[in-house]
Amino acid sequence: MTRISCPKLSQKVTTADVAAGFINHGDNVGMSGFTGAGYPKVVPGALAQRIEAAHARGEDFSIGVLTGASTSTEMDGVLAQAKGIHMRTPFQSDPTLRKQINSDEVDYIDTHLSHLAQQVWFGFYGNLDVAVVEVSAILPNGLLVPSSAVGNNKTWLDQADKVIIEVNEWQPREYEGFHDVYYGTKLPPYRNPIQILDPTQRIGDPYLRVDPEKVVAVVKTHAPDRDNVFAPVDDNSKAMAEYLIDFLRHEVRAGRMPKNLLPLQSGVGNVANAVLAGLQESEFEHLTAYTEVIQDSMLKLLESGKLDAISATSFSLSGEMAEYFNDNIESFKGKILLRTQEMSNHPEIVRRLGIIAINGMVESDIYGHVNSTQVLGGQMINGIGGSGDFARNAFLNFFVSPSAAKNGAISAIVPMASHVDHTEHDVHVLVTEQGIADLRGLSPSKRAKVIIENCAHPDYRDRLTDYVERAKASATGRLHTPHILEEALSWHTKFRDTGQM
Amino acid sequence: MTRISCPKLSQKVTTADVAAGFINHGDNVGMSGFTGAGYPKVVPGALAQRIEAAHARGEDFSIGVLTGASTSTEMDGVLAQAKGIHMRTPFQSDPTLRKQINSDEVDYIDTHLSHLAQQVWFGFYGNLDVAVVEVSAILPNGLLVPSSAVGNNKTWLDQADKVIIEVNEWQPREYEGFHDVYYGTKLPPYRNPIQILDPTQRIGDPYLRVDPEKVVAVVKTHAPDRDNVFAPVDDNSKAMAEYLIDFLRHEVRAGRMPKNLLPLQSGVGNVANAVLAGLQESEFEHLTAYTEVIQDSMLKLLESGKLDAISATSFSLSGEMAEYFNDNIESFKGKILLRTQEMSNHPEIVRRLGIIAINGMVESDIYGHVNSTQVLGGQMINGIGGSGDFARNAFLNFFVSPSAAKNGAISAIVPMASHVDHTEHDVHVLVTEQGIADLRGLSPSKRAKVIIENCAHPDYRDRLTDYVERAKASATGRLHTPHILEEALSWHTKFRDTGQM
Repeated sequence: MTRISCPKLSQKVTTADVAAGFINHGDNVGMSGFTGAGYPKVVPGALAQRIEAAHARGEDFSIGVLTGASTSTEMDGVLAQAKGIHMRTPFQSDPTLRKQINSDEVDYIDTHLSHLAQQVWFGFYGNLDVAVVEVSAILPNGLLVPSSAVGNNKTWLDQADKVIIEVNEWQPREYEGFHDVYYGTKLPPYRNPIQILDPTQRIGDPYLRVDPEKVVAVVKTHAPDRDNVFAPVDDNSKAMAEYLIDFLRHEVRAGRMPKNLLPLQSGVGNVANAVLAGLQESEFEHLTAYTEVIQDSMLKLLESGKLDAISATSFSLSGEMAEYFNDNIESFKGKILLRTQEMSNHPEIVRRLGIIAINGMVESDIYGHVNSTQVLGGQMINGIGGSGDFARNAFLNFFVSPSAAKNGAISAIVPMASHVDHTEHDVHVLVTEQGIADLRGLSPSKRAKVIIENCAHPDYRDRLTDYVERAKASATGRLHTPHILEEALSWHTKFRDTGQM
Repeated sequence: MTRISCPKLSQKVTTADVAAGFINHGDNVGMSGFTGAGYPKVVPGALAQRIEAAHARGEDFSIGVLTGASTSTEMDGVLAQAKGIHMRTPFQSDPTLRKQINSDEVDYIDTHLSHLAQQVWFGFYGNLDVAVVEVSAILPNGLLVPSSAVGNNKTWLDQADKVIIEVNEWQPREYEGFHDVYYGTKLPPYRNPIQILDPTQRIGDPYLRVDPEKVVAVVKTHAPDRDNVFAPVDDNSKAMAEYLIDFLRHEVRAGRMPKNLLPLQSGVGNVANAVLAGLQESEFEHLTAYTEVIQDSMLKLLESGKLDAISATSFSLSGEMAEYFNDNIESFKGKILLRTQEMSNHPEIVRRLGIIAINGMVESDIYGHVNSTQVLGGQMINGIGGSGDFARNAFLNFFVSPSAAKNGAISAIVPMASHVDHTEHDVHVLVTEQGIADLRGLSPSKRAKVIIENCAHPDYRDRLTDYVERAKASATGRLHTPHILEEALSWHTKFRDTGQM
């Protein structure tokens, strides 16, 4: 059965090369894709070839790329290799692109994932010239069935002058009914309350809309999403998961949280996987998730019956799990809702629902300022993603990391963070394999004590305590968050120069 | 006419000394008060005497103090002088208390003003033992007419075991009808959308409720709020105001904002005063404000007809203007609504209404990380206040400061901020008397250029450019936000050691 049943749009079916021809040097292009799911599979590659040919002719050719979040080699990878990206937002994880960002060849704007769509509507990024959006089908009336990620697709389709659609037959046709695309957004001063009271409550449509007049090309593809493989749960991750789940138990016992907790948000990565695996073994039942991304472990939690339902904006599955999901998609219907990332990460909803937010970190300083994005003050890893959307507005937030990295050469607890993404005003609980630091209601000097004692690696604990004591002795009149400014970043410079903090 | 017409509560009328007797060592006390308005006038003084007497007897006596925001000498001042405060949140501005915070005698938890009420409900601060709340009248049925600030009073009255009410006859009896106290708040997962669509839309009650059984004392007072005197608008403030207003004009012309702008939020201070004074002279009409605090200049803007209406949580007037307002209060009815600070600063409303947020700063670094709270990495000034609530969720935010302080000894633009309260992800526009830096959609290295060129003081511009260039040359592979970590905080240490950056 054809996936493209709209007479008007089926006339636009063409090749990736022809489609890529609609994208010009200097264009701002809104691409689908969020954590390696739902990105366009072939137009970026064709565009990269076009860009390389232009460069070979001595012509300038580069574009601004706006997405949902990270994509994959077939998109960010090929475009970056072709030196075809001059501006990129809001999140990425491609090695080639990352290198270009860190050599200042690409202007990277690291943006809260709930902010980008509205900022494009507000006009902060100028005109959006083209949208390139993957879907799983086009209905007879021209409505689009989204694929494995919604991301910012609604905004790209609404805002772009020209639209290129990729219809990916690898994505199940049965995705119809899994999405909730909210068309009630407006610009201030005309905005209304977003009436979500429950993680998987529907407030929108199951389809994306597009003005057929704007569609310049429809391209058929058959290609899988990125294979998101994670390392098996190691001892450190298991320890962190146990501390975290025990803490939740403690909060329930103290009457601060319902027995089935509150909706979970979990960042991508090994610790998140371990926490979800830990919940699988726990006594908790009827859990829900209001999150960005559905990983393998979250899907398993849903299948096991521990988790009742998931709201997200995207999948991020291993190849194996994606096959399993695609083969059994009907059994997940009604339990999973994919929303626009404006809604999945919306401060209004996150605060209202009272999310439990679990996110990774690069480092935390002794006073609880968290670095989520950069190494040594200037080297971008991926980006802040949704961690700020969730942490700031959460009922309770956790930042997790092993206490040391690179065989102990790097401490995750440092005197002063070399970049701050989450300020001391926003951080509730830190977790490492050493233990848990509950910072709620604590002054900075009390935070320092509990962070060092509970979370720092034993190899670094004495030096951290020594730093705090000397800071207190030397910073008379500045004892709210005492620092020795000459030394505050010396752990980072030592690591830079010697490979060891 | 008596201000206390409830038979049950009028039996509780007593002296400040007796009332203070209900407060014990170790208690958590929720006090009214926001930016020097609506704080209890006499019970804190009586309590301070009680504390001093206990100390003279060799007994421990100190309390935790939770308020709306800053208060005055009669509250924070006397309690701090008596060494009676061991914990303080969420904001303060008292010189004695500030000294104790900076000598680590007081645990100060610097909290977003929209977060504290819910965090107390969540149980993050333990039990609330006593509430001490100023009102302007008690009705026959026991409902309370709030005075010049609402702040967190609803939460203190709901949560505290014991309640002490001060009825201040200096506050106009005619305050009845000026407030909107929202009783629809619930704990997750039972929260509902907050149905505010318009700055001065009513969603609550004009009165505060209190369980009469909990009221242990009612004390009559007759004392003015703090006299909030500001320096007259100086040349620097005027220049900043002109840049900012011109920028708003530009945004309207570009079609990014309606002709009557969007609801204004303005922090307290001289620049805010100057901006509001500048708007008075401008072509803008039918303005509205959704803000924390009503200053003299905002009240003047309302009276002049430029501003249609104001939603806030508190006044912060000069003595002279307070007298004028009190004498003419009836003429302001219907144009001013005082809400709880949970609502005045609520992320949900701030994002929905699309606020234009204008806040002061201590310093910004070259990449747009803003320090709002601390000097030299550790010395607390006042606190973050509502700047985070508004800036993060605003349609457009401005951070303003003169480019240099202390006769040029301090630059407001530095290589690296010595404390970060607003991250690069959250800052839209910087304003100094030198000019304006529009950071929207710019990568960090482009931000550095525009911040240095447009906002830095000429005396510091070359050194900042030199820093950036040397950072770029030395930080190969870390060029997203290049830094020389050894030197990043050297401007601060130089100022500390020599009095000059």
